Amino acid sequence: MSYSAPLKDMLFNIRYLAGIDQIAQLPGMEDAGFETAQAVLEEAAKFNETVLAPLNWVGDQNPTSWKDGMVTATPGFKAAFKQYTEAGWQGLQHPVAYGGQGLPKTIGSAVGEMQNSANMSFALLPLLSDGAIEALLTAGSSELNAIYLEKLVNGQWTGTMNLTEPQAGSDLAAVRTKAEPQPDGSYKIAGTKIFITWGEHDLAENIVHLVLARVNGAPAGVKGISLFVVPKFLVKADGSLGARNDVACVSIEHKLGIKASPTCVLQFGDAGGAVGYLVGQENRGLEYMFIMMNAARYGVGVQGIAIAQMAYQKAVEFARERIQSRPVDGSLPAAGPIIHHPDVKRMLMTMRAYTEGCRALASVAAAAYDAAHHHPDAQTREQNETFYEFMVPLIKGFSTEMSQEVTSLGVQVHGGMGFIEETGCAQYYRDSKILTIYEGTTAIQANDLVGRKTARDGGQTAKALAAQIASTEAELTATATPDALVMAKRLAAARLAFIEVVDFVSGNTKAHPNAVFAGSVPYLMLAGNLMAGWQMGRALLVAQEALARGEDVAFMQAKITVARFYADHILTKVPGLRDSIVDGAACVTALALDAF
Amino acid sequence: MSYSAPLKDMLFNIRYLAGIDQIAQLPGMEDAGFETAQAVLEEAAKFNETVLAPLNWVGDQNPTSWKDGMVTATPGFKAAFKQYTEAGWQGLQHPVAYGGQGLPKTIGSAVGEMQNSANMSFALLPLLSDGAIEALLTAGSSELNAIYLEKLVNGQWTGTMNLTEPQAGSDLAAVRTKAEPQPDGSYKIAGTKIFITWGEHDLAENIVHLVLARVNGAPAGVKGISLFVVPKFLVKADGSLGARNDVACVSIEHKLGIKASPTCVLQFGDAGGAVGYLVGQENRGLEYMFIMMNAARYGVGVQGIAIAQMAYQKAVEFARERIQSRPVDGSLPAAGPIIHHPDVKRMLMTMRAYTEGCRALASVAAAAYDAAHHHPDAQTREQNETFYEFMVPLIKGFSTEMSQEVTSLGVQVHGGMGFIEETGCAQYYRDSKILTIYEGTTAIQANDLVGRKTARDGGQTAKALAAQIASTEAELTATATPDALVMAKRLAAARLAFIEVVDFVSGNTKAHPNAVFAGSVPYLMLAGNLMAGWQMGRALLVAQEALARGEDVAFMQAKITVARFYADHILTKVPGLRDSIVDGAACVTALALDAF
Repeated sequence: MSYSAPLKDMLFNIRYLAGIDQIAQLPGMEDAGFETAQAVLEEAAKFNETVLAPLNWVGDQNPTSWKDGMVTATPGFKAAFKQYTEAGWQGLQHPVAYGGQGLPKTIGSAVGEMQNSANMSFALLPLLSDGAIEALLTAGSSELNAIYLEKLVNGQWTGTMNLTEPQAGSDLAAVRTKAEPQPDGSYKIAGTKIFITWGEHDLAENIVHLVLARVNGAPAGVKGISLFVVPKFLVKADGSLGARNDVACVSIEHKLGIKASPTCVLQFGDAGGAVGYLVGQENRGLEYMFIMMNAARYGVGVQGIAIAQMAYQKAVEFARERIQSRPVDGSLPAAGPIIHHPDVKRMLMTMRAYTEGCRALASVAAAAYDAAHHHPDAQTREQNETFYEFMVPLIKGFSTEMSQEVTSLGVQVHGGMGFIEETGCAQYYRDSKILTIYEGTTAIQANDLVGRKTARDGGQTAKALAAQIASTEAELTATATPDALVMAKRLAAARLAFIEVVDFVSGNTKAHPNAVFAGSVPYLMLAGNLMAGWQMGRALLVAQEALARGEDVAFMQAKITVARFYADHILTKVPGLRDSIVDGAACVTALALDAF
Repeated sequence: MSYSAPLKDMLFNIRYLAGIDQIAQLPGMEDAGFETAQAVLEEAAKFNETVLAPLNWVGDQNPTSWKDGMVTATPGFKAAFKQYTEAGWQGLQHPVAYGGQGLPKTIGSAVGEMQNSANMSFALLPLLSDGAIEALLTAGSSELNAIYLEKLVNGQWTGTMNLTEPQAGSDLAAVRTKAEPQPDGSYKIAGTKIFITWGEHDLAENIVHLVLARVNGAPAGVKGISLFVVPKFLVKADGSLGARNDVACVSIEHKLGIKASPTCVLQFGDAGGAVGYLVGQENRGLEYMFIMMNAARYGVGVQGIAIAQMAYQKAVEFARERIQSRPVDGSLPAAGPIIHHPDVKRMLMTMRAYTEGCRALASVAAAAYDAAHHHPDAQTREQNETFYEFMVPLIKGFSTEMSQEVTSLGVQVHGGMGFIEETGCAQYYRDSKILTIYEGTTAIQANDLVGRKTARDGGQTAKALAAQIASTEAELTATATPDALVMAKRLAAARLAFIEVVDFVSGNTKAHPNAVFAGSVPYLMLAGNLMAGWQMGRALLVAQEALARGEDVAFMQAKITVARFYADHILTKVPGLRDSIVDGAACVTALALDAF
């Protein structure tokens, strides 16, 4: 299956919506202007199109396999990972001090999308390393970081996140893995972790497990969880590898999708205790883990966009080639390619509008992340941080939920051929199903949106966003083009619905938690839809201006059409969600438990 | 995976919504009253729960296989099919004259649902035989029927439908298979058919292929297609089997789901021509095929309901067992089963409301079918026929589309466990994906709804249905309970949206076909949602009355809650669809083809 990176759309977002040239004015980001973005993305496109994409189907057909505790990756993955690390892709967004390139997330996010379009199973490996790097940068001691960071950044070693246990999935309070302090300052780790992505493999010299565990005597619940580094091979003082640590991969899962990425059961401490090193302070593990999880949640949202893009490309390709029936408007003399049929266009437009909307939102959020980390003004940093934090559950939840609708439409466009595995689009349908589950299910994202992002500040952040959207509406209305007027109208209806829901949520979370949480996922879907639609509204404005300048006419016209489609076909779902959330809460929880 | 047939809900529909006791007053249906329905359904539940359900996962893991032209079914299927036919299930709805039991579709449909919940791959075999029987009953000569019908009805032989060719999927005008008349009145058939479900297998003595082909010199397009019987083994005058016919299964497909049902490529006539027998008259094949396809389309809609039911049951089972986190309302002292979480309830309620709504609609449509075929009054027959015909594309399209949302939610309820194949719910997610494709994609159903069912009579049938819905609203309003008032309000909003869309469709199909067909699938989703919601409104009325009589309190209360949920969470999607269809048509087809 060939992949062609949507460079133009990415660069449009980066330039006009995310404002890369403003990011390049931030201290330490001087080299990260539009030209850098363009150069990096072109290089990334080449790498992902030619090296990773050809291995995607191979990985589905020849999943990574387990034998006697050893995990062997899909043929071709090892060589590809070598190329990947040698080209420096692992270090793209990481500090120059540790050998990275220190590029902004605004650029890194687009590169991440490409990797995941090309090969989601593969891309999970560097994504998990990113998380481990993030956690160490946040809380690792200088000694620990001196040993581990550079090799994680250059890809010599890879990282994992060990949260889940058989009895502790979404509920980390239930974590049981034990950590026993040793005289030398290290800990002995013992317990079972499941669903550990790339928890064991043969692509790197060492694996750096970041493990949640409880120190003896720690408080119950999430306040007693600490974070540890547990390397697969112990590291000697000179940085060379020593003995195998007491951590074993006892099996890997047989999964619906992302089959080339091993999902491991890891057993820590069966032979006396795995050696672990505390990251930061005891009992603050969840806090650190959240930092790395937030990065990973954003990354999973991008995976949704990535797989949606791939499904779209494949569907367009098929729709251009497959001849079936004469168009209903008689525009062809006989049967023609199915892309001529209005319903096929509707499916392709739906796929594209969702993908472009979510991509635009992710790009804008990435820019806020960069400003939050690099802007010299504290208030501006905080504003951007608040914006980014509000968007993370939406990007994770909405982009991944939409990706399942998009990959399903991708199969549908293919008709009967779509159901045949060799066609390839069924893989995207299968792969995408994990995205609404891992790194926190959609419901977990929705809890975050309701609790920390909406109720905590009484809906203030949400209302401020609504005010920004109203400004965009005013700008659209001022241009007075038919497309802009429709967009303004749909945005306004969605914004008003959003405000009502925000009031409902912030007004009832304490007194009527069941009512609010009955609508938490619909609220996430509503908010995600609106925020992505808002970016499509901004994109429409930019495209109108660019058209007036005669710039890139075909692209800008298409952008306007896609934005208009988003307004009429996706934003129109919002008011109905308001009705469900605000009026329909009671019946969600009314049924007696034994009546289910 | 255990299956427990939803007997109570089925019998509620059959008794109160479909009105089985009125059906039992039709000539020839005298034995088909409520008690018969109950007895048959209980027997069917036993059979499907104990014989077919245990083979479902086995079939997914050990798909039917092909070797040297021979197809071997999943272990256990052969014995199960023997039990199935010996118990007389194949003949349930077929004429007594051919050894069937002549029961109404109102009962048969519920039995069909059970079979498909228990084992969709298996159930496809009798479903295809039903289609072949239907075609022969419609158009077969008495000679042909004397040879084939009894053995199809008793399951000694099975049937297939051979429509699709590599270049002719949805577009049957492109069929190329040839039929050459022979001096003895038979034809020599030659061509390639693909996607032939149970086209070859080892479960029955003979396979009766019903094949679309073109007689030499026939007109181009669909007007030149004839229907033939092509048996796997030729049948001698005494009914015993003769030589192998010239039809070979050259391969079977590697599919996303329904893996135990072989999907065959059949090659006709490679060794001189397969012997075929004309069904009915030359060039009327499509007409006959449509009769059997209509039955099959209804049947596929029921498959959607069936798999949704199974996904629901499995999700409820898991949600009761899986312990994770304390409920948000503090109703438990510690972490409890996830069924306590509002969002899990929302998912389960969504699954259930869709399933019950579609089941009610299918049951009511089945009753209309029975009245259309058995009522002594011609006008009543016609009215019922019109009702049934309007509902078929909705049942096929809406029930299958919703089944994909439901099976996806089923995986979601399971969290990470849902992504592991051994858990079993991923199979439903995979299996359900075929349902919106075969027997006519959702777009093909939508074309039928727009063209034959709405535009042809200027929206008259649709408007008459809207008037009936308005009556139900009035009845609901008259009871003045809060639940009934909400249902009436949501139905009214949806009905008004429906009427606007019907006007748009019937007013523009000729002049602006692109605009209408751009919204054809959304129209189908809108209409299906409304019609199922209408039946939930009727169910709510019945349940309120039953409650007043003190009848089956827990069941009736649950029915009211589920109906209310349908109103607030599913019917509320309708107005947004109106906006997309009526206001949003232009942007669907505006994008230049090369801009995709």
